[in-house]
Amino acid sequence: MPTVKMVEYADASPEVKAVYDDIMATRKTNTINNFWKTIAVHPPTLARTWRDLKEVMAPGALDPLVKEMIAVAVSATNGCAYCVNSHTAAAMQKGMTKEMLGELLAVVGMFNTTNRLVEGYQVEPDVFPPLE
Amino acid sequence: MPTVKMVEYADASPEVKAVYDDIMATRKTNTINNFWKTIAVHPPTLARTWRDLKEVMAPGALDPLVKEMIAVAVSATNGCAYCVNSHTAAAMQKGMTKEMLGELLAVVGMFNTTNRLVEGYQVEPDVFPPLE
Amino acid sequence: MPTVKMVEYADASPEVKAVYDDIMATRKTNTINNFWKTIAVHPPTLARTWRDLKEVMAPGALDPLVKEMIAVAVSATNGCAYCVNSHTAAAMQKGMTKEMLGELLAVVGMFNTTNRLVEGYQVEPDVFPPLE
Amino acid sequence: MPTVKMVEYADASPEVKAVYDDIMATRKTNTINNFWKTIAVHPPTLARTWRDLKEVMAPGALDPLVKEMIAVAVSATNGCAYCVNSHTAAAMQKGMTKEMLGELLAVVGMFNTTNRLVEGYQVEPDVFPPLE
Amino acid sequence: MPTVKMVEYADASPEVKAVYDDIMATRKTNTINNFWKTIAVHPPTLARTWRDLKEVMAPGALDPLVKEMIAVAVSATNGCAYCVNSHTAAAMQKGMTKEMLGELLAVVGMFNTTNRLVEGYQVEPDVFPPLE
Amino acid sequence: MPTVKMVEYADASPEVKAVYDDIMATRKTNTINNFWKTIAVHPPTLARTWRDLKEVMAPGALDPLVKEMIAVAVSATNGCAYCVNSHTAAAMQKGMTKEMLGELLAVVGMFNTTNRLVEGYQVEPDVFPPLE
Repeated sequence: MPTVKMVEYADASPEVKAVYDDIMATRKTNTINNFWKTIAVHPPTLARTWRDLKEVMAPGALDPLVKEMIAVAVSATNGCAYCVNSHTAAAMQKGMTKEMLGELLAVVGMFNTTNRLVEGYQVEPDVFPPLE
Repeated sequence: MPTVKMVEYADASPEVKAVYDDIMATRKTNTINNFWKTIAVHPPTLARTWRDLKEVMAPGALDPLVKEMIAVAVSATNGCAYCVNSHTAAAMQKGMTKEMLGELLAVVGMFNTTNRLVEGYQVEPDVFPPLE
Repeated sequence: MPTVKMVEYADASPEVKAVYDDIMATRKTNTINNFWKTIAVHPPTLARTWRDLKEVMAPGALDPLVKEMIAVAVSATNGCAYCVNSHTAAAMQKGMTKEMLGELLAVVGMFNTTNRLVEGYQVEPDVFPPLE
Repeated sequence: MPTVKMVEYADASPEVKAVYDDIMATRKTNTINNFWKTIAVHPPTLARTWRDLKEVMAPGALDPLVKEMIAVAVSATNGCAYCVNSHTAAAMQKGMTKEMLGELLAVVGMFNTTNRLVEGYQVEPDVFPPLE
Repeated sequence: MPTVKMVEYADASPEVKAVYDDIMATRKTNTINNFWKTIAVHPPTLARTWRDLKEVMAPGALDPLVKEMIAVAVSATNGCAYCVNSHTAAAMQKGMTKEMLGELLAVVGMFNTTNRLVEGYQVEPDVFPPLE
Repeated sequence: MPTVKMVEYADASPEVKAVYDDIMATRKTNTINNFWKTIAVHPPTLARTWRDLKEVMAPGALDPLVKEMIAVAVSATNGCAYCVNSHTAAAMQKGMTKEMLGELLAVVGMFNTTNRLVEGYQVEPDVFPPLE
């Protein structure tokens, strides 16, 4: 039950259309996901989120597929259904196999267990030097 | 303020000592982290957690460093301080640079924002086929 | 897939009916939301939750609309779909515009990112005096 | 780094003192935990929270020790250090042994893993009838 | 919208069939829940999770019904819909009444409030000795 | 136990210094909080986060104090200690009184309870029209 009505391309302001056009050009696709059509109800949030996403997901020290799998890990940990779906689809497009997804979710599950054991026992910190 | 007293090697039962020995042999180290010394108060949990961790973190479809960075992503999303510290230290030992940590946390931060926008607007699912 | 059958007005005990009547009188409406009809399966929880809600949401140092928007912020952060829907609807009734919702969710999103950056880097506390 | 200054008994208003007296009488103790002395900065919250806690924790269909262990489970899942500490101490006073704590946290850890597997794979609901 | 296609018994590998058979024998049932059919896409995760679950839920210092109610508490706190449904159904089979569910969720709700008050006020720790 | 060494002004690159200068000018202060000095280890994250924060917190449809209180609500719900402290301090500077903080945290606590009751009972959605 969406909270707001999505902004379709035909009804969009020039400012929103410009972002939609950039999304489609960058992703080489003709469709805009519901996420973008929804946050477009607040154009500054649409523009900022797309600008940030392009910047954060750009090639860098980490592989784009690794970044997308981290997005799946975060979304599964937060329990965000839409997010898990869309990031899993994106990771598949970037080459994630069923075996890789299996290991990814096994790791996510594993460390959710150890996180709770740590919290439940209030484990004392080991001492590591900070990363210079 | 830990909830229980840690089990030191000298005071450990043979069953616990066997796990400690395997941890030190596997990791080529002489020390046991506080996590293991704490969960050792319940030996079946120690044995099961170590067995699972070895299995989940073993070489497979994903690179060990990627798995460790996913552990950092999960721990930062859950806000588990001990876990963030120990997984960051482990990832550094496996080759994570400061630049890679910077990108990792940028991705974690980014998708925590989009997860909340999705939840806040109750975005309708896009339709993707399941992964065969 | 609800866990229990909701308690409809016609089937309610006098104790539950009294709470339903107070909800409808206070809110100047003829309907009872599914939340109340569901928690009515445990009458003390119905009575306590309604009593608390009236007390917490009463006019005070904060504006009722601000309180309702805080409820949206909490629900979006927790990823509770029903809660986001009902608090957004309630906030709209109290005057929230689409622009205000846009800024509200932008703030919620923003600080979910910074929260994770803080956890991921384990930022050291700045020192502020407590609020006298 | 507490956000506010705690309200000590000697400095408390009559309204706050009455709650403190009831806490000490109910718990047969001479001390007030920091939780109560902190939330006393907002007396209605102190009064409501104590009233609710007494009601929720009173003997009923569930054993008081079971209720306290559920409080530990919730607090470990939320990662609330103070809460884990105080509920673990309270559960120990009600008879929880180290073995029981070990099993409790093993269960908490286990289902944090399965929760994430469910979210990560977006498992389709099984159909169960609601509890009449 | 599931992320992967479930593995039905007829299509399962011998390794997966063996786990399915053990689940049905242990639970004295002819059906396999969607959870198991889904995680079976990654057979090591299926095998490990079932092995762990049997171990953690076996009779011990805590009653099996108490363990199942703790699973409900964790799942409600995490907001995992599938998990709440299946653990509530399992707890009912083990004897949980509507009254017990009512108290369980009241406790879960109560301590989610106090957890947030503790975090919001940054309450200073009380000092308790660790559990020997 | 911070994960990285903070970047002090004297050691900062021109790019980082420019952000520090803008933070101090915008906030009319001579100090840089540890948050900024920490995320400065990854300069693009520093620049993006500060740019976003200025944009999101700028005067708009919501009052700056309301935005800061929403930041407290999000941080308390996430259990991020550093974040609670710094946003509470910032809200006080913008005029939040102890009474307002008391009501704010009471609302945050209240809706964390109702969120869990909703999740625990799997309440069926009420139907509201989306916000046009």
